[in-house]
Amino acid sequence: MTASNCLRSWVESANGHPDFPLENLPLGVFSRDDQAPQGGVAVGDFVLSLRSAACAGLFQGEAALAAQAASGASLNDFFALGAGPRRALRQALQVLLGEHSQQREAMQALGETLLVPISACRLHLPARVGDYTDFYVGIHHANNVGKLFRPDNPLLPNYKHVPIGYHGRASTICVSGTPVRRPCGQTLAPGSDMPQFGPSKRLDYELELGIWIGQGNEMGEPIAIERAAQHVAGFCLLNDWSARDVQAWEYQPLGPFLSKNFASSVSPWVVSAEALQPFAMAQPPRPAGDPQPLPYLFDARDQAGGAFDIELEVLLLTAAMREQGLPAQRIALSNTRHMYWTVAQMVAHHSVGGCKLQPGDLFGSGTLSGPQPDQFGSLLESTFGGKQPIELHSGEQRTFLEDGDEVIMRARCRKEGQPSIGFGECRGVLLPAKY
Amino acid sequence: MTASNCLRSWVESANGHPDFPLENLPLGVFSRDDQAPQGGVAVGDFVLSLRSAACAGLFQGEAALAAQAASGASLNDFFALGAGPRRALRQALQVLLGEHSQQREAMQALGETLLVPISACRLHLPARVGDYTDFYVGIHHANNVGKLFRPDNPLLPNYKHVPIGYHGRASTICVSGTPVRRPCGQTLAPGSDMPQFGPSKRLDYELELGIWIGQGNEMGEPIAIERAAQHVAGFCLLNDWSARDVQAWEYQPLGPFLSKNFASSVSPWVVSAEALQPFAMAQPPRPAGDPQPLPYLFDARDQAGGAFDIELEVLLLTAAMREQGLPAQRIALSNTRHMYWTVAQMVAHHSVGGCKLQPGDLFGSGTLSGPQPDQFGSLLESTFGGKQPIELHSGEQRTFLEDGDEVIMRARCRKEGQPSIGFGECRGVLLPAKY
Repeated sequence: MTASNCLRSWVESANGHPDFPLENLPLGVFSRDDQAPQGGVAVGDFVLSLRSAACAGLFQGEAALAAQAASGASLNDFFALGAGPRRALRQALQVLLGEHSQQREAMQALGETLLVPISACRLHLPARVGDYTDFYVGIHHANNVGKLFRPDNPLLPNYKHVPIGYHGRASTICVSGTPVRRPCGQTLAPGSDMPQFGPSKRLDYELELGIWIGQGNEMGEPIAIERAAQHVAGFCLLNDWSARDVQAWEYQPLGPFLSKNFASSVSPWVVSAEALQPFAMAQPPRPAGDPQPLPYLFDARDQAGGAFDIELEVLLLTAAMREQGLPAQRIALSNTRHMYWTVAQMVAHHSVGGCKLQPGDLFGSGTLSGPQPDQFGSLLESTFGGKQPIELHSGEQRTFLEDGDEVIMRARCRKEGQPSIGFGECRGVLLPAKY
Repeated sequence: MTASNCLRSWVESANGHPDFPLENLPLGVFSRDDQAPQGGVAVGDFVLSLRSAACAGLFQGEAALAAQAASGASLNDFFALGAGPRRALRQALQVLLGEHSQQREAMQALGETLLVPISACRLHLPARVGDYTDFYVGIHHANNVGKLFRPDNPLLPNYKHVPIGYHGRASTICVSGTPVRRPCGQTLAPGSDMPQFGPSKRLDYELELGIWIGQGNEMGEPIAIERAAQHVAGFCLLNDWSARDVQAWEYQPLGPFLSKNFASSVSPWVVSAEALQPFAMAQPPRPAGDPQPLPYLFDARDQAGGAFDIELEVLLLTAAMREQGLPAQRIALSNTRHMYWTVAQMVAHHSVGGCKLQPGDLFGSGTLSGPQPDQFGSLLESTFGGKQPIELHSGEQRTFLEDGDEVIMRARCRKEGQPSIGFGECRGVLLPAKY
């Protein structure tokens, strides 16, 4: 990558920043000290206060509209505006923060009123989640898990026709950094026919791409696949914490419930489709013999450029590692290219029967595993159903998570000739059950 | 029933009203003409405006607090107050509207500002639904449907241990009277292995009790069964519209999705636990050989009085009936006594892993069928999977719903020596698919 390919900013820490250069500019909600949460933009090591920027008269037209809508304690109103104002705000920010900005001195004069050190910020859930839907589009995950739950029937006949999804729990979506308590629930010990109640013994993470919905649709009015991408406000990381022993006992016939609804963590920054554009790619061709999508799920433009090349990483930091001063250990590296269905296909499918999507709805992609064991996005897969522990550099082993373990997810886009952009972290430490 | 057992009101239409005597007093949200929606109470043929009553200074203390919280466009704030203020408001209203009310003249002087004819009101969804959860506690339904979907395995091993539930779609909960559009979706024709796309051909209703959640809990803090009933704000009827052909193809392995999320209708009035108290009953004993509930699901007081005797009725009004001037025809009469789990057990189970409940969350009981065919709460059951059409008094037959059919659900409590109370209607007409 040559410097000439990069946008340069007078905010020096943005230049070459691995996550938040001027090409990214993700939105989120932050607060400082005891102040009320407000919308902001990550740039280098700072968060730009959209309210301060708007009050200083830095924006005009659609960009001003967008900044105003993103100034409060949640981004729902901003999401509702759709792609036009979002792009206008992005372009305005790239000019304002660019090295040749005519507003540079005025902005610098605002000091930390405008640019707050990210280290001084508390980050919040970026939007009030209306409904949360979890998909299942990671085909390697579906195959791996299917083998464990249904050895003779891993991938069900509908999988390659239907972007399988189910409704999850919105009330327990929490922002990165929120501790997660190990849930209690009913489980069935092997060989027993009487369930027992107690703390889950098979607690797991799931590595997912999160998708924030922007403009919605009216009930009864499907979103056509050609327009589906326009209804996406942005992307994040999602950890769909899962109690596998509870799941195995409860999930038939209506799907996962308590095994998933105690917590789902998301990364705080909303990365826009515009920032991801250089990392868009064609949907990988389906293996020979796979059916073609039905017409309502097929759009040539989506097939040609609706997939993404985003590296997804899971790290584990155990209590022992913290005590020994060891760094977190990477335990999986995957990629969004392992999605069997595109985001546009998920949106089109979700709404095709008339289901109403609203600004601030959240989708999870489902666990995104690659084909190799070091690419598996859950411990259930990495340990082959808890049978083969993974070895840690602290000398410990894990089949499932132990109390005090912290799960850290990261996402980054890299491409020759392009500055990298990152999602920031999605992390959560596991607290012991109350029992 | 002797008159002396009834509370008598100076609102004459309340006395002997089959649904809304002074013993009921359900809350809802109404509007008149172009005015903004506001909270109200059904009494006889009128809706009492809580805002007008509060402005007139009719309430004191907790009742005033409750009336204020229930005066806006949704009852969420009222639900959040819990049982104390709700009971205080109920008691105050029974005195104010009673035949010996000292405020009678002052209230009458307010005319339609205070008491709006129900026929002039538009009724709205009573609360913003946070999360919607559908349970499966109707054991006859679970058995009937299980036979159709899994002939060799109707009732899964977990059914009698776990109050099975799953997350549904909050955004498409709609109030009685909202037309429902037949959804399109993927279905698999018998004998085919390639799905097709088009309007659902097996559209059905499901007769359910709806449960509005009042005070919630913090994430990670379960609600003990002994306190569970205190977290319920009230009850309604719920029609969980279902596209059976879509459901059969999509529901494995993660549960129903598009087959259920296009619409769920609720009746507009929130009937309180206090109004239902005379119709509370012991949970019917489990059949010999059934397991006892695990301790977190067992409370002696709940077992002794946590079930309800509420008649549930489904009527069908077809386009032909409307044209011929025929009345709607009853096609099922069931009862909430067919619930295998109590409402308190549902609340305790839902939160036992730490899932956060919030004021305005909605539960569905699952379809409540009785053991006999004329008690079946869905057409899937009544027609034995679409194989035995039901005969209508218009000379028509039905296996599943046809465009123009209106489904009407009613609920009523009756008991010797008690005035009856009703829920009002939950109705919706089926519009043709857009295709």
